[in-house]
Amino acid sequence: MRNIYLNCVKRTEPVIRNPNFARSAKAGARLGFVTQKCNIHSVRNVTAFSKSGADSLRDDFCTKLRGLGAKNIQSRMMGHVVSQRDSRFKKLGKEDLDYFKSVLSESRVLVSKEMGGNADPTELDTFNTDWLSKYVGHSQVVLFPTSAQEVSKVLKYCNENTIAVCVQGGNTGLVGGSVPVFDEVVLSLSKMDKVRSLDKDSGALVCDAGCILESLDDYVGEFGFTMPIDLGAKGSCHIGGNVSTNAGGIRYLRYGSLHGSVLGLEVVLPDGTIINNLSTLRKDSTGYDIKQLFVGAEGTIGVVTGVSIATARRPTSVNVAVLGVNSYQDVKNTYIQSRKDLCEILSAFEFWDARCMDTVLTGFNTSNPLSGDYPFYVLIETSGSNDEHDEAVEKTMENGLVQDGTLAQGKTQISKMWSLREGIPTVLAQTGATYKYDISIPINQLYDIVHDTEVRLENAGIYKKDAAPSENYPVKSVNGYGHIGDGNLHLNIVADKFDDKITDLLEPFVYEWVENVAGSVSAEHGLGIMKPECLKYTKNDQIVSVMRNIKNMFDPNGIMNPYKYLPENK
Amino acid sequence: MRNIYLNCVKRTEPVIRNPNFARSAKAGARLGFVTQKCNIHSVRNVTAFSKSGADSLRDDFCTKLRGLGAKNIQSRMMGHVVSQRDSRFKKLGKEDLDYFKSVLSESRVLVSKEMGGNADPTELDTFNTDWLSKYVGHSQVVLFPTSAQEVSKVLKYCNENTIAVCVQGGNTGLVGGSVPVFDEVVLSLSKMDKVRSLDKDSGALVCDAGCILESLDDYVGEFGFTMPIDLGAKGSCHIGGNVSTNAGGIRYLRYGSLHGSVLGLEVVLPDGTIINNLSTLRKDSTGYDIKQLFVGAEGTIGVVTGVSIATARRPTSVNVAVLGVNSYQDVKNTYIQSRKDLCEILSAFEFWDARCMDTVLTGFNTSNPLSGDYPFYVLIETSGSNDEHDEAVEKTMENGLVQDGTLAQGKTQISKMWSLREGIPTVLAQTGATYKYDISIPINQLYDIVHDTEVRLENAGIYKKDAAPSENYPVKSVNGYGHIGDGNLHLNIVADKFDDKITDLLEPFVYEWVENVAGSVSAEHGLGIMKPECLKYTKNDQIVSVMRNIKNMFDPNGIMNPYKYLPENK
Ligand SMILES: Cc1cc2nc3c(=O)[nH]c(=O)nc-3n(C[C@H](O)[C@H](O)[C@H](O)COP(=O)(O)OP(=O)(O)OC[C@H]3O[C@@H](n4cnc5c(N)ncnc54)[C@H](O)[C@@H]3O)c2cc1C
Ligand SMILES: Cc1cc2nc3c(=O)[nH]c(=O)nc-3n(C[C@H](O)[C@H](O)[C@H](O)COP(=O)(O)OP(=O)(O)OC[C@H]3O[C@@H](n4cnc5c(N)ncnc54)[C@H](O)[C@@H]3O)c2cc1C
Repeated sequence: MRNIYLNCVKRTEPVIRNPNFARSAKAGARLGFVTQKCNIHSVRNVTAFSKSGADSLRDDFCTKLRGLGAKNIQSRMMGHVVSQRDSRFKKLGKEDLDYFKSVLSESRVLVSKEMGGNADPTELDTFNTDWLSKYVGHSQVVLFPTSAQEVSKVLKYCNENTIAVCVQGGNTGLVGGSVPVFDEVVLSLSKMDKVRSLDKDSGALVCDAGCILESLDDYVGEFGFTMPIDLGAKGSCHIGGNVSTNAGGIRYLRYGSLHGSVLGLEVVLPDGTIINNLSTLRKDSTGYDIKQLFVGAEGTIGVVTGVSIATARRPTSVNVAVLGVNSYQDVKNTYIQSRKDLCEILSAFEFWDARCMDTVLTGFNTSNPLSGDYPFYVLIETSGSNDEHDEAVEKTMENGLVQDGTLAQGKTQISKMWSLREGIPTVLAQTGATYKYDISIPINQLYDIVHDTEVRLENAGIYKKDAAPSENYPVKSVNGYGHIGDGNLHLNIVADKFDDKITDLLEPFVYEWVENVAGSVSAEHGLGIMKPECLKYTKNDQIVSVMRNIKNMFDPNGIMNPYKYLPENK
Repeated sequence: MRNIYLNCVKRTEPVIRNPNFARSAKAGARLGFVTQKCNIHSVRNVTAFSKSGADSLRDDFCTKLRGLGAKNIQSRMMGHVVSQRDSRFKKLGKEDLDYFKSVLSESRVLVSKEMGGNADPTELDTFNTDWLSKYVGHSQVVLFPTSAQEVSKVLKYCNENTIAVCVQGGNTGLVGGSVPVFDEVVLSLSKMDKVRSLDKDSGALVCDAGCILESLDDYVGEFGFTMPIDLGAKGSCHIGGNVSTNAGGIRYLRYGSLHGSVLGLEVVLPDGTIINNLSTLRKDSTGYDIKQLFVGAEGTIGVVTGVSIATARRPTSVNVAVLGVNSYQDVKNTYIQSRKDLCEILSAFEFWDARCMDTVLTGFNTSNPLSGDYPFYVLIETSGSNDEHDEAVEKTMENGLVQDGTLAQGKTQISKMWSLREGIPTVLAQTGATYKYDISIPINQLYDIVHDTEVRLENAGIYKKDAAPSENYPVKSVNGYGHIGDGNLHLNIVADKFDDKITDLLEPFVYEWVENVAGSVSAEHGLGIMKPECLKYTKNDQIVSVMRNIKNMFDPNGIMNPYKYLPENK
């Protein structure tokens, strides 16, 4: 017996499942019984799910398991609880592995030792564990196709045999979509990494879906182009993953959505049909633009195997400045003024509050680029073809709202300034357990949610703004930063530890707050396994119902990335 | 008996249909018989279809009909022949009109006199005839809803009663999609023309689908914004029509596709479901982006009733220059160089050949803005926030490839230069029968098709390039112009008259040529009734099959804009 799935669905009622016996037990008293019955000594991976309750029960159970010799025990905090492996899905047998090997060759089928292969556990862990080490799957088989034809054969077979599949790109996604939940076959695109063509006149790039974003940017850079998307994970994430998550990132303000810059896709549907729509044309008005459905589909309706994308001219002149500002109102008005003054050359407008700045300066052991401290900071970037536009940046710095500002001199200073902004999430996470909310809100109200969250936590007596070091509250800080130009706030609440009381105060509060201002509960990270049940706060029943129809149309057997993306159909 | 539909499907076999008797007859001898049987004296609209053959038969018949007193006789040249009204569709009766009136009030239901209403024929003609007067429908009823709720009630009723519906915006479409083919009910959005909101911070505009593009641009202009789309028809076309045709236009190079700038839509599905997805957020990654399916759906899966769109900052500095260039190669290289030099401020790059220039100068009785004549002309526009960028335009003018150039001084000169480019289609059409092809081609090969078409017509002996005025060839000129920045060529062949011989030489030649270079047979005008059978040259069977599934999913009864968009399912 390989895996145990422990799902604590309600506070008082943990449900314990294992793939062989699928049995459930009521609370603590029966845990011992279950662990015994499950032959717990051979367990390697244990994932303890928890919706927000049952933490202590889960912790007890994990301790017990550890005592029994289980090594890799993970504990998940997740919004979406999947309590049971879908029994419709076939368990892999030798005949399936033989088929996969016949299509891909032996060397491109990674199989666990327990299933008769050579892969040692750590090798498989890479594919089973997400970037945050927050979600851990239990797959025993990873496939590495190198062409759409191979993907087609694999999917057709899986579809006919009802074998569940989890598509994986660079595995940098932040909502647990890229790792299996139970024993889904992992289909890794990492060996589909060839550039197919670059039109040096138009800048249209066609490549395999598994190309790494940074490699592509380097490649097109040689010809004077730049990718229309950039993000912190660029060294690992795939262009196919970017497309599949409808990723945003720091060039969004300038080059807009992937819905605009993706020119065409090559996609394999679950039934094996290869949809080759790798057009390099900028304009094409012939029928429904079906590729758009795959932008942001997170591997739930097919596999993206090729991407055609419009690259942009690489700007020859880039300027970055950090500004100090007195209030969020001033941040917002500076943004509006900059959009007017800088119009086409404004390429980023990021902000963060004083708490973020303190944390990041301490974390990096560095000094404030400005001479004083301010309630808010802004990073403004311009990029274009004309050096003289520097003056325009300076004009922004001189507007009455900006208290202080410093313009980066040269590339090193530019990247140092960017690292202040980009370092915030990592450094915050180092200071405690971070509750992360990636939300879209109309910019007028963007920072209000930070205040309202503070008030709520203060009223509950678990947080005090600007508490003295001697006062020890469970919530340490409430932080706001993000891409203000895109209306995208990252609300991060740092606590001593993850705690049900805090979670209950934050959820659904945050999601309802977002719903009330017609915001989005996922600005750029997608839904994955984390947010299907939160979809309702942003999309109404009618829309979700159309989504279900689309899912059923492409994937009637539901083999593609099951348990994720759409809420359970009750 | 109101209407006769005459469809000449094959050269030797015209088929004559009328909605009451649906009878067919073989060629000339029987026309008299049919016209008699059809009580031809009460005929008002007659449409004579022709696929490319049967012109003379059709002409004979029309003459006969005219002799019999029919007034409004139209003759269509069309790629897609619809030979028969779909008998599944209910013919409207009094009970239907009563229902429509109960939902919309009497004043917003336009009914022909023949059906007991007050509308005189010319009033209905406006809705039955397309902008080119090329396509004429036979609807007796036009509905004017003012809200999504009203649209919902109407569609639900039509769906339940299998009543065919043709959605109409500003009726400026160029492929016959906006007018009924037979007796479909016309659903005009013209009374849904209210701005709902403008976020003055982010520039997100929410409005009714029936708002006229130019009015919207004027409205947002007051707040320093501009619509991200602009086209010649802006004074009449609706934003809902723009969305539904995925319109391109002259700001495409700068602001990109509507797939990127449309933030949300309100859509009514055929079953009456109102999908309200009027988000004003720039970033939202929560589920399949279903609104994208309605961008370019041409009224075949639902009615767009509301649009949320990202407007752009209105540029404060606009410059336009006309350049003279020696070869297409030089046009292309000048474009590439300009993209490098002007990067973010390049907002249009249009070109046309010497024949277009001669025609437009003669037509407008005006003089060349350049001192000499050149084989090719370019209109280049920059727009941004910095006047000094003018220099950059001048730099382009001074590159070795540009023989001559002149920069517009002031608004009047700017619009005069634009009128040269924008006047080409109208003036060409005045010089003869114009075969128009709106195609996307990789820019490297963009002009090759003009040469190849010339050679083909010369080899056939019906055209001679630079023929002396004394030589009289049926084909007068082969012209190329268009949006080179978007890879969008307008290939226009002007002939004495529309003639099967010419058509047969051009089609499928042009479409196959486009297919061979992986181009698009419709860059920006859509498919409508003109191009469903040409879809195959740009989209393969797999893609068309997915499109059919989408159509069936949203519109299982096929009531929305029937006979159009997708090819007949044989
Ligand atoms: C440090 C860091 C910074 C980040 N910054 C940003 C940011 O600024 N903006 C932003 O939007 N996101 C950001 N992200 C998250 C972002 O979603 C991912 O980095 C990226 O888009 C995912 O690409 P990937 O190849 O890693 O996909 P994976 O993580 O492997 O997969 C993500 C989802 O897409 C599916 N998928 C992947 N490839 C395919 C394919 N070929 N066909 C079908 N489905 C596929 C998977 O099944 C999964 O559901 C960041 C992540 C990290 C770790
Ligand atoms: C002078 C001139 C210049 C043009 N220039 C350009 C150009 O530069 N670029 C370009 O792309 N096009 C151009 N066009 C054509 C272009 O398609 C239309 O101008 C415009 O996009 C159509 O808008 P409309 O409101 O007139 O739609 P209509 O013509 O009324 O309808 C077009 C199609 O959309 C459907 N439709 C309309 N409204 C709705 C709705 N609310 N919901 C669902 N379906 C709807 C109709 O059923 C029809 O199939 C030009 C046309 C003219 C006459």
